[in-house]
Amino acid sequence: MISFPEEESKHCVKVLRMQEGDRFCVTNGKGSLFDGELVVAHPKRAVACLTNQRPGYDNRPFSLEIAIAPTKLNERTEWFLEKATEIGIDKVRLFASYHSERRVANVERFRKVMISAIKQSIKSKLPEIEDVVDFNKLVKQPFDGQKFIAWIDDNVTELLCDKYEKGKNALVLIGPEGDFSAEEVKLAVENGFVPVSLGDARLRTETAAIVACHTVQLINQMNR
Amino acid sequence: MISFPEEESKHCVKVLRMQEGDRFCVTNGKGSLFDGELVVAHPKRAVACLTNQRPGYDNRPFSLEIAIAPTKLNERTEWFLEKATEIGIDKVRLFASYHSERRVANVERFRKVMISAIKQSIKSKLPEIEDVVDFNKLVKQPFDGQKFIAWIDDNVTELLCDKYEKGKNALVLIGPEGDFSAEEVKLAVENGFVPVSLGDARLRTETAAIVACHTVQLINQMNR
Repeated sequence: MISFPEEESKHCVKVLRMQEGDRFCVTNGKGSLFDGELVVAHPKRAVACLTNQRPGYDNRPFSLEIAIAPTKLNERTEWFLEKATEIGIDKVRLFASYHSERRVANVERFRKVMISAIKQSIKSKLPEIEDVVDFNKLVKQPFDGQKFIAWIDDNVTELLCDKYEKGKNALVLIGPEGDFSAEEVKLAVENGFVPVSLGDARLRTETAAIVACHTVQLINQMNR
Repeated sequence: MISFPEEESKHCVKVLRMQEGDRFCVTNGKGSLFDGELVVAHPKRAVACLTNQRPGYDNRPFSLEIAIAPTKLNERTEWFLEKATEIGIDKVRLFASYHSERRVANVERFRKVMISAIKQSIKSKLPEIEDVVDFNKLVKQPFDGQKFIAWIDDNVTELLCDKYEKGKNALVLIGPEGDFSAEEVKLAVENGFVPVSLGDARLRTETAAIVACHTVQLINQMNR
């Protein structure tokens, strides 16, 4: 027996119109799915009986993190969060850099976007999201895996899809609308990040982030 | 010397605030870029001098087409069109099928979304978009290349990323919110479409379309 928090109770009883006895699939957001049966259809304190705990299909042998500078328009960052959650991501790190248009973020609102996305796509894990930190601090944070910085520069010819090794943990830095400054790229390289290209196409920040996310997921799916 | 149509004149003079003598890059939407100089800064009939015609970086040796059922919320289809244009697509075919939530589309509005996307991403080719046709008609239309239908089914285990062959033309059918009916998949198979999976993740219609688009583009970029 578990009782849902107010927001989930409302979603279950008011939005989904569930009644006592109704069955559903529920996740703990930590890698498990359960079969649920609604026992008390209270709009603020719904109670459910959970059975058949099982691992979600989205448990992966590798970890994928994307670090992104919040976009000028919040809806573009929220769109990235929704799509990355659907495609598969473990953690989103937000940062502010020299050309950042936005230095603060509503992390709670961003988390809600990801919560509704894991419900919609029946994921068992809620991706983590970390509040905005300064770029200089971000690149010094420890990470156990391959570290990349996506940069649009004629000297950067190697592609993320060629440098990323299947099965490895990956952290990819995606620049703001004005891209990274040369100094920022230098600092990232000094801290072990490998500059990579996402291809010839000039992509918006949120598109580049989705492309990086899907690139890592796809390479892990492919039989080649 | 060319004179811009009213909408482009307005964009150039009113939105971008360009003045006579200003230089810019312009595309004919058919694969070429030009250097331009504004000669007459008229908000409805701007005139420019174009020089240095050159092929865009987005000319590809293969053609990628995605057929998609317009989503219930137009903004989701428009989002797909913007992102697919950025990532790279040659033609979008719209269709109505058994579970379609929407059977009509504002193709002109959709085209405008793609026009602004090729400007933003400095593309030289405007993707084509075809108005809604019935699914039964769509699957019978001729296509010279690999034809796939993305379908969520336990029996469909082969992945688009494994079945698609680098360099080949590709047409991928993406189902509506309610997915394809078994009869529709049968009809597609009878017409040469290969059922493929886009992976374990359960994706929204517009996310599946972007994943299919990026899968084909990525396989053509990879050195493996």
